[in-house]
Amino acid sequence: MNVVPIGDNLIVKRLTVAETTAGGIVLPDAAREKPQQGRVLSVGDGKLLPSGKRSAPEVKEGDRVVFGSYAGSEVAIDGESLLFLRTSDVLAIIR
Amino acid sequence: MNVVPIGDNLIVKRLTVAETTAGGIVLPDAAREKPQQGRVLSVGDGKLLPSGKRSAPEVKEGDRVVFGSYAGSEVAIDGESLLFLRTSDVLAIIR
Amino acid sequence: MNVVPIGDNLIVKRLTVAETTAGGIVLPDAAREKPQQGRVLSVGDGKLLPSGKRSAPEVKEGDRVVFGSYAGSEVAIDGESLLFLRTSDVLAIIR
Amino acid sequence: MNVVPIGDNLIVKRLTVAETTAGGIVLPDAAREKPQQGRVLSVGDGKLLPSGKRSAPEVKEGDRVVFGSYAGSEVAIDGESLLFLRTSDVLAIIR
Amino acid sequence: MNVVPIGDNLIVKRLTVAETTAGGIVLPDAAREKPQQGRVLSVGDGKLLPSGKRSAPEVKEGDRVVFGSYAGSEVAIDGESLLFLRTSDVLAIIR
Amino acid sequence: MNVVPIGDNLIVKRLTVAETTAGGIVLPDAAREKPQQGRVLSVGDGKLLPSGKRSAPEVKEGDRVVFGSYAGSEVAIDGESLLFLRTSDVLAIIR
Amino acid sequence: MNVVPIGDNLIVKRLTVAETTAGGIVLPDAAREKPQQGRVLSVGDGKLLPSGKRSAPEVKEGDRVVFGSYAGSEVAIDGESLLFLRTSDVLAIIR
Repeated sequence: MNVVPIGDNLIVKRLTVAETTAGGIVLPDAAREKPQQGRVLSVGDGKLLPSGKRSAPEVKEGDRVVFGSYAGSEVAIDGESLLFLRTSDVLAIIR
Repeated sequence: MNVVPIGDNLIVKRLTVAETTAGGIVLPDAAREKPQQGRVLSVGDGKLLPSGKRSAPEVKEGDRVVFGSYAGSEVAIDGESLLFLRTSDVLAIIR
Repeated sequence: MNVVPIGDNLIVKRLTVAETTAGGIVLPDAAREKPQQGRVLSVGDGKLLPSGKRSAPEVKEGDRVVFGSYAGSEVAIDGESLLFLRTSDVLAIIR
Repeated sequence: MNVVPIGDNLIVKRLTVAETTAGGIVLPDAAREKPQQGRVLSVGDGKLLPSGKRSAPEVKEGDRVVFGSYAGSEVAIDGESLLFLRTSDVLAIIR
Repeated sequence: MNVVPIGDNLIVKRLTVAETTAGGIVLPDAAREKPQQGRVLSVGDGKLLPSGKRSAPEVKEGDRVVFGSYAGSEVAIDGESLLFLRTSDVLAIIR
Repeated sequence: MNVVPIGDNLIVKRLTVAETTAGGIVLPDAAREKPQQGRVLSVGDGKLLPSGKRSAPEVKEGDRVVFGSYAGSEVAIDGESLLFLRTSDVLAIIR
Repeated sequence: MNVVPIGDNLIVKRLTVAETTAGGIVLPDAAREKPQQGRVLSVGDGKLLPSGKRSAPEVKEGDRVVFGSYAGSEVAIDGESLLFLRTSDVLAIIR
């Protein structure tokens, strides 16, 4: 199954907590915050401009991205939770 | 009877719960969430641009689409519940 | 008397409940929902674009249309209740 | 004294209740609703477009117009209450 | 001292109550409403259009204008209360 | 240290109360209102237009300006309180 | 690790309180306000214009900038708190 985002949407797999804590200490669930980082799984063909053309997205598949704490919406597809963001929700790419 | 969406509207038949649960277990009604997926029945001629032209929709009849949890409005036509979405409510196409 | 909508307005005669229930059973008033369908009585000359031109409306007199549940405003003219919609309130045409 | 509306404003004299009730029965004040119809007294030179030009208004002096129930603002000028509407508040012209 | 409004601002001296009551009866303060009319003292060079040009204002110094009841903001300059309006707050000119 | 506003920002030193009362009477603190006037310290290079160009600001360094009562935001820089306004917050220039 | 802001985002390291108090007195935590100044760590490629082009940002890496008190959002990356601003959140550059 292939989930293809359209327009200025992109699909992100949110990093798990383990991947983002620096010291390697295993935290209990309640102490974990949802990380504001994730891996881009796929990208739409860009935001529709008033001219009818589309703006090429600045992120691409595989990028590790930073986003705001309430950005996007999570949708469960085949039991896996995917985060759908708009390209404007992405603050930065981590390289 | 033929229901033809106009502008940037499209009509979607929401997937039933049975079609979206992975393991095949029959759930009682109260345990079911409304799936955020559906099959596109028909598509309007696209969003009106400031120039007066229309932007060709990215989804087409038969596509299986993903949308946000509160997107669109349900209208009962001849006893069947149809979901009317704007093209911008569609997050992704499942292929 | 001739009521001529202007701009992107159109006038709709909302279907009566009897016309929309499938099985022909006469319902008491309290069990009736306002149908989200109606017949277009007349159409304005279209939405004003930023260029100063107007976009030709996609609906025409006589069309049976579907609209959102809180769309438009009802005005009583000569004792008859008419529903004034914007063209963007129309979701679909039933043919 | 001459009151000249500017831009996309127009001045309307709201119909009195007597003029709008069909059967000619004189109603007590409390039973009267403010009619959503009026006679256009004068019209501005039109809405300013992004280009800096103005869009010619679709209504003209003398037109009997229909408007939404909370449209515009009433201003008392020399003891007479005038209703100031924007051209976009006008739903239809009655001919 | 010369107060020069900029952009789409204009400065208005609100009419005193005496000037607007028809019959010439002197009202106590509490019975007075703020008149929605005034004399234009000066006018800015017009609203900035998206093109970067300015739209010539439709009102000029000396005009007696009508405005909405909550339009603009009053600023005291050298003990005198001036009403600052945007050109779009002006409903009509009284000639 | 040189504080350079960018875009359509400008920096204003709000007038002290003493400078704005007409009669020269020294008021206690509680009786003082924040004056809606100030001296322009520096001006950005103008508001970004949709075309990508900038609109030349209408105010310049040294202008005494009038602004709305809640306009802008005060920031303390090196112990001095500066008022940052957008050019559109300026109502008039006093010459 | 390299965090690259996209579009009209930029990353700022907020000044510590010690760096902003003039007299060099060490304040207890509760007496400290979050300074509205910071050092620009990196800058995106600019705001997307309606034409599809981007506006060159007015700030560059290394600039010391002033911003509004509630501007932007803080994200912790590898244990370091970074402030993500939009270019329009920057009020001034300190040189």
